[in-house]
Amino acid sequence: MASTSGGPEIEQLIQLLSRLPGLGPRSGRRAVLHLIKKKEQLMIPLAAALDRAVDAVKVCQTCGNIDTISPCTICADPRRAETGLLIVVEDVADLWALERAGIGMVRYHVLGGVLSPLDGVGPDDLSIDQLIRRAPDYSEVVLGINATVEGQTTAHYITDRLADTGVAITRLAHGVPVGGELDYLDEGTLSQALKARTRF
Amino acid sequence: MASTSGGPEIEQLIQLLSRLPGLGPRSGRRAVLHLIKKKEQLMIPLAAALDRAVDAVKVCQTCGNIDTISPCTICADPRRAETGLLIVVEDVADLWALERAGIGMVRYHVLGGVLSPLDGVGPDDLSIDQLIRRAPDYSEVVLGINATVEGQTTAHYITDRLADTGVAITRLAHGVPVGGELDYLDEGTLSQALKARTRF
Repeated sequence: MASTSGGPEIEQLIQLLSRLPGLGPRSGRRAVLHLIKKKEQLMIPLAAALDRAVDAVKVCQTCGNIDTISPCTICADPRRAETGLLIVVEDVADLWALERAGIGMVRYHVLGGVLSPLDGVGPDDLSIDQLIRRAPDYSEVVLGINATVEGQTTAHYITDRLADTGVAITRLAHGVPVGGELDYLDEGTLSQALKARTRF
Repeated sequence: MASTSGGPEIEQLIQLLSRLPGLGPRSGRRAVLHLIKKKEQLMIPLAAALDRAVDAVKVCQTCGNIDTISPCTICADPRRAETGLLIVVEDVADLWALERAGIGMVRYHVLGGVLSPLDGVGPDDLSIDQLIRRAPDYSEVVLGINATVEGQTTAHYITDRLADTGVAITRLAHGVPVGGELDYLDEGTLSQALKARTRF
């Protein structure tokens, strides 16, 4: 009876929207109904925005960021090189999160994931070779890789590969999130926060 | 710094996707990154599906269903009139839910909401006049309106308006959902389920 719920065009739209992260079959249907109700204000602008983005979106060949130009806005901005900091992240979402935090004039390198032998992800599947080539242009490589087992393995692997370049290697500090409540934090974070305590 | 996270085309796409029900700014960004990563498999097909749906989608002038033809597939199917049942629902999503349940050869009437004086929704804002005109062609009008205060007010208003037509008016049964656990049900549902108990 699926075909009676709106015809093939609508069914296909539901199926595609359902594949977005955070949506499923039910919320995909709700999203499509919402789009159809707001046809002028939302559906038509979204269709146009998607068409434009399909044409415009590029992956930066230098750092792996997503932008409409390559090299991306960050790699093309010479002021970004002044601090000499190159922050290594797993994913474009991490880069965007750091940019939203306004951390300043830095450059990034997007690995595209972490080493994961079980999932068949080896060094050649990540942009590690490109990182090794870029690193000597910077004074410090900051590892902004997530504190998971795979993330830490990847961080160690990168540190080994960068050992000969003489570039300083640091990692983001562990500790209590600003505004976080101790009660909700895991033991690893708390013990790191105590070890790295600073004078008040 | 928002413009550095991918250029205006990507920002606009994030903003539009964030307005879908079930998504917010954070999940909108995740959705856009997912789309860009799956450009060939998801982003381009979704852009094409949206363009097709924008052109194809029509609201059925008879019942308010959404389809690619008007009258819709259900209203155009003469077998649907055989049972003489016309089910009144608030929203297209309710119609689709009943269709997925495979309830059989019935027709529907989508009100487009419920009476809500506080929100300024009066009888003229819903398709109640159209319902009154359609009802005499059917032997029974089944009220499938949600059991909220506004829904029940709307059901009473429709019942009053249909009183002169001589059409039988029923409502969907209240009771324990199939597979539902008593422990999780509200008292209103449980007391209705006891009142309407059936022989085992």
